[in-house]
Amino acid sequence: MSTTENTEISVGELLKDAPRNWGKWGAEDEVGSLNYLTPEVIVKAAGSIKSGKVFTLQVKMANPEGDPVWPGRSGAVRTMVIDEGQYIAGKGPHFQGGAHYADDYMTLFLQGSTQYDALGHVWYDGQLWNGFDSRSTVGRMEKASVLPIAEKGVVGRGVLIDVARHRGKSWLDKGETFDHTDLEAPAAAQGVTIEPHDVLCVRTGWLTYWYQLTDRAEFYDGFNEPGLTYSRELVGWFQQREIPNLVTDTIANEVTYEPGTGVALPLHCALMRNLGVALTEIAWLDDLADACAGDGRWSFLYAAAPLKVVGGTGAPVNPVVIR
Amino acid sequence: MSTTENTEISVGELLKDAPRNWGKWGAEDEVGSLNYLTPEVIVKAAGSIKSGKVFTLQVKMANPEGDPVWPGRSGAVRTMVIDEGQYIAGKGPHFQGGAHYADDYMTLFLQGSTQYDALGHVWYDGQLWNGFDSRSTVGRMEKASVLPIAEKGVVGRGVLIDVARHRGKSWLDKGETFDHTDLEAPAAAQGVTIEPHDVLCVRTGWLTYWYQLTDRAEFYDGFNEPGLTYSRELVGWFQQREIPNLVTDTIANEVTYEPGTGVALPLHCALMRNLGVALTEIAWLDDLADACAGDGRWSFLYAAAPLKVVGGTGAPVNPVVIR
Amino acid sequence: MSTTENTEISVGELLKDAPRNWGKWGAEDEVGSLNYLTPEVIVKAAGSIKSGKVFTLQVKMANPEGDPVWPGRSGAVRTMVIDEGQYIAGKGPHFQGGAHYADDYMTLFLQGSTQYDALGHVWYDGQLWNGFDSRSTVGRMEKASVLPIAEKGVVGRGVLIDVARHRGKSWLDKGETFDHTDLEAPAAAQGVTIEPHDVLCVRTGWLTYWYQLTDRAEFYDGFNEPGLTYSRELVGWFQQREIPNLVTDTIANEVTYEPGTGVALPLHCALMRNLGVALTEIAWLDDLADACAGDGRWSFLYAAAPLKVVGGTGAPVNPVVIR
Amino acid sequence: MSTTENTEISVGELLKDAPRNWGKWGAEDEVGSLNYLTPEVIVKAAGSIKSGKVFTLQVKMANPEGDPVWPGRSGAVRTMVIDEGQYIAGKGPHFQGGAHYADDYMTLFLQGSTQYDALGHVWYDGQLWNGFDSRSTVGRMEKASVLPIAEKGVVGRGVLIDVARHRGKSWLDKGETFDHTDLEAPAAAQGVTIEPHDVLCVRTGWLTYWYQLTDRAEFYDGFNEPGLTYSRELVGWFQQREIPNLVTDTIANEVTYEPGTGVALPLHCALMRNLGVALTEIAWLDDLADACAGDGRWSFLYAAAPLKVVGGTGAPVNPVVIR
Repeated sequence: MSTTENTEISVGELLKDAPRNWGKWGAEDEVGSLNYLTPEVIVKAAGSIKSGKVFTLQVKMANPEGDPVWPGRSGAVRTMVIDEGQYIAGKGPHFQGGAHYADDYMTLFLQGSTQYDALGHVWYDGQLWNGFDSRSTVGRMEKASVLPIAEKGVVGRGVLIDVARHRGKSWLDKGETFDHTDLEAPAAAQGVTIEPHDVLCVRTGWLTYWYQLTDRAEFYDGFNEPGLTYSRELVGWFQQREIPNLVTDTIANEVTYEPGTGVALPLHCALMRNLGVALTEIAWLDDLADACAGDGRWSFLYAAAPLKVVGGTGAPVNPVVIR
Repeated sequence: MSTTENTEISVGELLKDAPRNWGKWGAEDEVGSLNYLTPEVIVKAAGSIKSGKVFTLQVKMANPEGDPVWPGRSGAVRTMVIDEGQYIAGKGPHFQGGAHYADDYMTLFLQGSTQYDALGHVWYDGQLWNGFDSRSTVGRMEKASVLPIAEKGVVGRGVLIDVARHRGKSWLDKGETFDHTDLEAPAAAQGVTIEPHDVLCVRTGWLTYWYQLTDRAEFYDGFNEPGLTYSRELVGWFQQREIPNLVTDTIANEVTYEPGTGVALPLHCALMRNLGVALTEIAWLDDLADACAGDGRWSFLYAAAPLKVVGGTGAPVNPVVIR
Repeated sequence: MSTTENTEISVGELLKDAPRNWGKWGAEDEVGSLNYLTPEVIVKAAGSIKSGKVFTLQVKMANPEGDPVWPGRSGAVRTMVIDEGQYIAGKGPHFQGGAHYADDYMTLFLQGSTQYDALGHVWYDGQLWNGFDSRSTVGRMEKASVLPIAEKGVVGRGVLIDVARHRGKSWLDKGETFDHTDLEAPAAAQGVTIEPHDVLCVRTGWLTYWYQLTDRAEFYDGFNEPGLTYSRELVGWFQQREIPNLVTDTIANEVTYEPGTGVALPLHCALMRNLGVALTEIAWLDDLADACAGDGRWSFLYAAAPLKVVGGTGAPVNPVVIR
Repeated sequence: MSTTENTEISVGELLKDAPRNWGKWGAEDEVGSLNYLTPEVIVKAAGSIKSGKVFTLQVKMANPEGDPVWPGRSGAVRTMVIDEGQYIAGKGPHFQGGAHYADDYMTLFLQGSTQYDALGHVWYDGQLWNGFDSRSTVGRMEKASVLPIAEKGVVGRGVLIDVARHRGKSWLDKGETFDHTDLEAPAAAQGVTIEPHDVLCVRTGWLTYWYQLTDRAEFYDGFNEPGLTYSRELVGWFQQREIPNLVTDTIANEVTYEPGTGVALPLHCALMRNLGVALTEIAWLDDLADACAGDGRWSFLYAAAPLKVVGGTGAPVNPVVIR
C-alpha cells in the first residue's frame, strides 16, 4: 500500500524514543510478549469461565460473498476435488464397501482472513522483533515466523473494549483514531478493568461496516482504517500493562496512517517489532460484544492457535472464547 | 483409495443394525454429537485446568520435510509474495515512513493437515449425517459442512488414551486394530476414566512412525493405518458414552480396512455419518502424552475450532489443550 | 453469470432448427471442426507466410495491472519460490559449482487468460459436442476436454476481420452486435476473402477498451460484451464455410445476451456444441491488426496449441501468427 | 538440488574462457539468440512444411498418472469449479436460456511441465544474461523474464537429432553424456544437416523412460539426467552455428552433473546465460521422431510461444511442429 506523498519522517525516527523488549526473554525468543502468558496467568484466566458459552472469532473464509482483505490481496479460493456429482456420474473413487466422500482444495493469502501476524511480519532498519536480521525473512521466515506462536498457543484472560458502542456508533469512521486513554473510558463504562497480561480485544465495528456494504469499492476507496494511533505514551502503556496480544476487528489493528506524520502502520513497529505484542487481525467481535453487553461481563478465557505454517509470515486462526 | 479386490459386503449392509442419532437435535442439525458439549459440560471441563500448561496439537504444515497426508493428496505449498529480498533489490512496496513487511501465499488440500472432518465428509446410501441428501455435497457442501463446527467451536474435557504406550510399542503396526474394550485397559492403567461427553483422544504412535521415516514410500506401500475397528458394540459404546469428538494421531482415525470384511473406513460411516461424532485427524499427541505420563493426569480442557471455510469438506485446525 | 429475469425461451428452443455436425467425424471425435484443418489445408496455408513477421496473441497473465476475466473469476497469481534474494540472505539451494536460479509458482482459472475452450465447455439438454453425455464433465472432462485440441494443435490459414476499424470506432459498445453479413463488408473493404477452413479472427477493440480503463468496475457494471449474435443463417454460414475456429478479442466470443430473447451465450451452443467450432477467447489482436492495416494483407499462418491439461474445460494458449 | 560433496571448482571458473554474446543485440536485449530468428530465416523455414502434418510437443499436465518434474517440484493440480454435477444437484449457476458450463482451476510450478526457461532463470557471479543484475530476479524477474520470449514467439526451422535411436537404445542411461560432435554422427546417419539458426531438438528417450516406470522413485534416486555436457568447444559450436534454441526430452536439457568437475548445470550458464540460447525442456519428441524416421525427413517448421507470464522465471508451452 504505497502513497504518492513522500513522508517527511521515517518510522524509525518517529519511534526513536519508543521502548523495546528485545532480549527480555533471551536472544532467541520468537514469541515476545506472549511470554507473559505464564501457567499462573492461565490458571487464573480459567476463572473467567462462568457460563460455559463459546464464541469463535474468525470471519468466514472462501466466502462467496467476499473475504475482507488488505488492498492487493484476494480472498481464499476453494474448489472441489471429489463430491457426490462424481459418484452420480459413475466416476468417484471406489472404496471397498462403497462409502462415498468429498474432498476439496484451497488457495489463500496467509494473511487473508482472521490471522496472527508473525512477530517478524513488519520491521524497519533491517531488524525484526528481538533484533533478528531482516534478511532472515527471505524465502521463508527463519526467525520470528508464525510457527513459534502456533506451537506455543495463546491462552489467557481476554477483555473486550467496545469503542464503537461507547461512541454510540455502528462503526468508527475512516481514519478515526483513539488511544490507550480512550480505552479506559469504555472500560469504565463497561465495568471492566484492563489488567496486566490481558489479551486486549478492541471493537471498532469496521467489519460490521464491511459486511453490510453492497459495493466494496467504497471500503477500498481512500483506504484508511480506524484504530489505535501512535504516541510514546500509548507504547509505554502497552509495555507497562504487559499486554501480550492485541485483537481487533480491523484488517491491520491500527489507524492505517498516523494522522500527525502520515507514517503507515507505526504500531506494527512500535508494539509488534519492538515490544513483541502479538497482533490478531480481522477478528469477528460483534457476537461476543453483544453477549458481553447482555450480561455486563466483558472478560473471558481466550484460547487461540494459528496454523503451524512453517516459515509463515502469518497464519489463519479461529480463536475460541469461553465466557 | 481403491482396491482391486471386490468387497462382498457393502458398508450399508455391515452397518444395517448400527444405531443412528439422526433427528436427535432437530432436522437441520449440522454439528451432531458436538451438541453434547453444553455450557454445563464446558464449565465442568474448565476444572481440568490444573497446571496452566498449554499444548497445541497440529502437525507442522507446508513443512519442507513433508506433510503426512492420505494417499493421493499432497502437502501444502507455501510461497513468498514479499520479503526483505525485494527491499534489498529496491523493489519492495513502499509504505509511508518506510516500514518493510513480508507476505505469503499457500495452496493446500483442506484435509491435508491436522483437521476436522465436516460431518458430511463421508456417506453411503445417498445420505449424509442427519439424513441430508448427498447431492448437497456437489460443488460445495450445503449441509453438514465444516462451517457449523467451526462456528460452534469444540470445547470440553479431553481425555487421552495412549494405546501405543500401553502396548509397549513406539507405534502400532500397519493394520493393527483395537476396540472400545481395548481403551478401557490403558485408561485403567493410566488411572483415568472415560466419562460421558469426553473428547476422546487416542494415541497410536502412527505419526511418530511417519516422522522418523527417511523414505515415506514405506508408509504408503500397502497403506493400512492402525486404529479402532468396527463392531456393533463399539458403536453402541460411543453412543452410550455420548462421545462428541474422536481425536487420533492417524490420518483417518480408524483401521483403514476392517479386517473381517475388508470394508474401508466403516467408522467414518458408523460414528460420523450415523452418530454425528466429530472426527479430528492427524493430531500430534506425543508431547501431550509425555506430559500426561509425567504427572499421571490424563484429562484436560480441550479447545479447538477449525477454520471457517464456507462449504468445506473439512478444515485445518490447531487444537489447544490446557492442563 | 445469472440474471434475475426469467427467460421465456430456452437455448434449446432457440436453436431447435439449427444444424449440427455430430457424428460427421465419428462417434468418438473430440475436436470437431478442427478436422477441417487437413494436411492439404495446412500446406496451402503455409503459402500465407510472406514477410516472416511473427505475432503472439496472448494477453499478459498474472499482470500486476490486472487480467481481463469473466465476472466471478480472478486473475492468475504468480509467486516466487526462489530468487537472488535467497542467495543474498545465504539461503538459496546449493548447486555444485555455485550456479543460482529462480523458480516460481502460479494459480489460475484455466479460462482466465487467452484460452481455448474445450468443445465440451458449454452445453444444454444433457449433451456436449457430438452427443457426449454431460455427466462426463463431472470431476474432470472425460470427453471433449481441451486435451484432444491441445494434442492435435491448430494450424491453418487465419484471416482477420477488424469490425471496430471498419465501424470507425476504437471499440464496439457494450452489447453491440454484428453477424456474418457484417463480416463481409469489412472483409471487402480490407480486400480479403473469408475462405473455407479459415481460422476466423474478429476484432472488436473490446480488450483495447479494457486495458485503457483505470476503473474496471465500468467494465463489469452491466456486463454485456459486444460480438456476433445468433441467427439461423449465421450458423448456416459457419457450417457452409466450414470454419474450424473462431478467435476474438472478447472474453466470450459473442454478444453476452442475444438481444431478441435475452438468452446468454447461444453461439457457444450453436457453434461450439453443435458444429464443433473451436473458440479462442481473450486474444490480443491489436498489434496484428495494425500490421495488417499497414500493408493490406489480412491473412496469415495461424499456429496455436493450448496447454495439454488433462480433463481441462479449457487451457491457456499463446497463439502464434506468421505473416 | 544440493549435493553434500563440495565442488573444487565453481561454474565461473569452469567457464572462464567461454564466450559470451552479451551486448550483441543491445544492452537491453532479453531474448538473446532468438534474435537469430529473423524474418528471412522464418520465411526460409516455412519451406520445411511438406506434408502438412502437425505435432505438439508438450507432455500432458495435471496428469493423474504424474507429471515429470525436477526433484522438489510437484505436478500441476487441477480442480473443478463447476460441472454438470452441480446442475444435477440443482446448484449450477443460471444462465438465461439455461445453458450449462464447466469451469476449472489449476496450481502449478511454472517450470513443472514442458516449458521455456527465461534467459535469466539461471546465473552466476551476480549477473544474468546480457549482464543484468541478478537482484532484478527478486520478487519477479524484471529483466530477461520469460515474457519477452513469449511476446516474440519462436519460429524457425527445427531439426531433430535422435541420439537414443542412433545409439540403439530406448533411452540413454543415467548420467550418460554426449557432445556436439556426437550430434553430427546421428545427423549424418539421419541424412540431415544442422544448419545455422536451426532450433536444435535432441532426443534422449529420457521421458520415454519416465512414462514407462511404475515406480518413479527409481527416476529420482541418484537423480542425474543424461544429456549434452560442457566443453569449451561445444560452447563455441553453439555460438558459431548461431543456435537460437535447444529443445530436449529431459527436465534440464543437459547432463545434471558435468562428469569431470561435478559442476551442476554448466550449460544453463554457458549456453543460456552467456550466449542467450533459449532452453525448452521436458519436450515430448517420441511421436515426432517416429514420423521423421518413417520418411527420413528430420527438419520442420517449429513454432512455439510460452505463456506470457509477467515476471516469470519460465512458462509452460505446447510447441507446434509442422512437417
